[in-house]
Amino acid sequence: MNDNAQNMLSAFMHVNLASISHNYHKISKFVEPSICAATVKADAYGLGLEEVAITLQNSGCKYFFVSDLYEAIRLRNIFGSNDNVVYALNGLKPSMTSEYISHKIIPVIGSSAELDEYRANIDECVEHRIALHFDTGFSRLGFEMDEISKLPINGLNIDLIMSHLSTAEDPQSNLPENQLNKLLNTTNRFVGIKKTIANSAAIFRGKSFLLDMVRPGISLYCGYNEKGTINRLESAIELYAPIIQIKDIKAGSTIGYGASYRAIKDIRIALVEFGYADGLPWSLKSTNHQSGGQFYFNNAPTPIVGRVSMDIVAIDVTEIKNDIKRGDFVEIIGSNQNIDTLAKNAGTISYEILTRLNSRVKKHYKYV
Amino acid sequence: MNDNAQNMLSAFMHVNLASISHNYHKISKFVEPSICAATVKADAYGLGLEEVAITLQNSGCKYFFVSDLYEAIRLRNIFGSNDNVVYALNGLKPSMTSEYISHKIIPVIGSSAELDEYRANIDECVEHRIALHFDTGFSRLGFEMDEISKLPINGLNIDLIMSHLSTAEDPQSNLPENQLNKLLNTTNRFVGIKKTIANSAAIFRGKSFLLDMVRPGISLYCGYNEKGTINRLESAIELYAPIIQIKDIKAGSTIGYGASYRAIKDIRIALVEFGYADGLPWSLKSTNHQSGGQFYFNNAPTPIVGRVSMDIVAIDVTEIKNDIKRGDFVEIIGSNQNIDTLAKNAGTISYEILTRLNSRVKKHYKYV
Repeated sequence: MNDNAQNMLSAFMHVNLASISHNYHKISKFVEPSICAATVKADAYGLGLEEVAITLQNSGCKYFFVSDLYEAIRLRNIFGSNDNVVYALNGLKPSMTSEYISHKIIPVIGSSAELDEYRANIDECVEHRIALHFDTGFSRLGFEMDEISKLPINGLNIDLIMSHLSTAEDPQSNLPENQLNKLLNTTNRFVGIKKTIANSAAIFRGKSFLLDMVRPGISLYCGYNEKGTINRLESAIELYAPIIQIKDIKAGSTIGYGASYRAIKDIRIALVEFGYADGLPWSLKSTNHQSGGQFYFNNAPTPIVGRVSMDIVAIDVTEIKNDIKRGDFVEIIGSNQNIDTLAKNAGTISYEILTRLNSRVKKHYKYV
Repeated sequence: MNDNAQNMLSAFMHVNLASISHNYHKISKFVEPSICAATVKADAYGLGLEEVAITLQNSGCKYFFVSDLYEAIRLRNIFGSNDNVVYALNGLKPSMTSEYISHKIIPVIGSSAELDEYRANIDECVEHRIALHFDTGFSRLGFEMDEISKLPINGLNIDLIMSHLSTAEDPQSNLPENQLNKLLNTTNRFVGIKKTIANSAAIFRGKSFLLDMVRPGISLYCGYNEKGTINRLESAIELYAPIIQIKDIKAGSTIGYGASYRAIKDIRIALVEFGYADGLPWSLKSTNHQSGGQFYFNNAPTPIVGRVSMDIVAIDVTEIKNDIKRGDFVEIIGSNQNIDTLAKNAGTISYEILTRLNSRVKKHYKYV
């Protein structure tokens, strides 16, 4: 645990910006000569848009993807007069074309409804760029394959053609290769325009996915440790919460809401000031018949007992003996437990855990 | 759907403050002559501490429960010079006694570690009050039953004795009655001091739980509709999100991450700009074998198809025909679907959904 933890009084997250910079450099080098952009939507996956974006900019990143216009305006305000390129993945919000233009934000347009509205509201004298999103098999945003040859693109400044993969992390799936081929086969019209299809997993799936630009997100923040990949990416995140009470529970007593966990012997529990309102999934609860999540104290596992409350969760510290007290901190994510393990125990994905940490969890940024 | 929805461009929550005021009045009347306090921890269950606390204050509430010192300071700053009473449920943060005193915040102390620290740092000339938390069977915060008779309370200004119930909503459980009896049997020492044990569910469990004060939370915000209770409490919450693209999917195509849903006939989907980063549980995903959550459009159900993404989710709108377009809003919580149904489909509880809605979800307050 970090030394600063003892000075803290509430749950906090360490965000190691040096790790993010390290990861950006590693990925950039790996994908050369492709451009390495960065996906910073949802407040940079919950890590803090301003600090993360500035770190990435200082690491050489010039291309940034956010979800919508409002995130893009926020990012543009962070960058100031810098000419970084900002893409809004969710496309063109109705009646807001002028906002994209005035803030120099590139909408990623993926439907005729958007393209028609854009064309109707753009002054041809204005220098403004758009990206086009092609749906090659994800069935989410983007033009259908059979629409592409008919798109009215004359007079438009198209900066980028993008598509997104559905199963990039699955070595058994051939969908990513099919999607890549579809993209390449349908972009003959778009000579000289950059193309991108690779998220984090696709970057390490094969060089053919790199195209002109890659758009890593999770690998910048949590590292990426699949076999056969560059294995030096680092997790930038640690998460700790304080113990607010230690108590001894007699055999037979039930613990927490629903009385869903019963101590079958005398145990000692610690009450940790971290609950689902902070972002700890309620699904990490345990019963006598089903284990839930666990935290770590001095590198020793401490299982969650009973349900997760709004602001508090109980952990079993019987094995820790007397070396634990009110004011100590437990590790939720750190050297003993990565976010993927926590997510797996909760029946969810690391991305959901990250993006749903609440504002009560203070962020402490580390720069070295 | 509310008329204002069409003016919006992003997901938003309506918080009907008039309903919260209505609920407060109803509960206050029901529990008379007990005091009706309000639990406003976790940013008033995600509804916005400032707006909710002021509404409750204007409705006659004078006693407020938050989780910790920092929430309490925030609430004190909202109230200004008003002499409302603010309790911090999570007890005394280490080395911070002077902060509780200077901000007139009542720590709910539940361990000897806290009480000893408090006594060591309090100047007897200072008028400051504390509450004591007794653990009557919840096995969470609070003094054990066998500690109570020995507590060194001389010289302390004890404002309130509290306990909390584990199974108040379960008519089959007799734990609440046991907990109540334990509290009453162990408080002989504390003559003339207010006692409280009732959360929302306990208020409607029986008059014997009302004691001197009740502490409703969820029933103020979401109503309370158990059989046999006062059934006029209202939900104060509606939640809507915009459609950003409509598309037709051919039979055989897979939808979304993991390609985990396959269209077995030609269908039409709408892509809704609302994902797990906004607070939509990832567990609302569906496969061909397991249904997930659903939204409503013009009072018609529209099931989620495939996985929930970070910023987007797909719904099946085949049955809606052509009367749906980009820019329309779908109901996530409203007159067709209450938060309990949404939570049930996600395998969680309404409280988790409420408290984990992200800051991207704009709050719009209704006053009538």
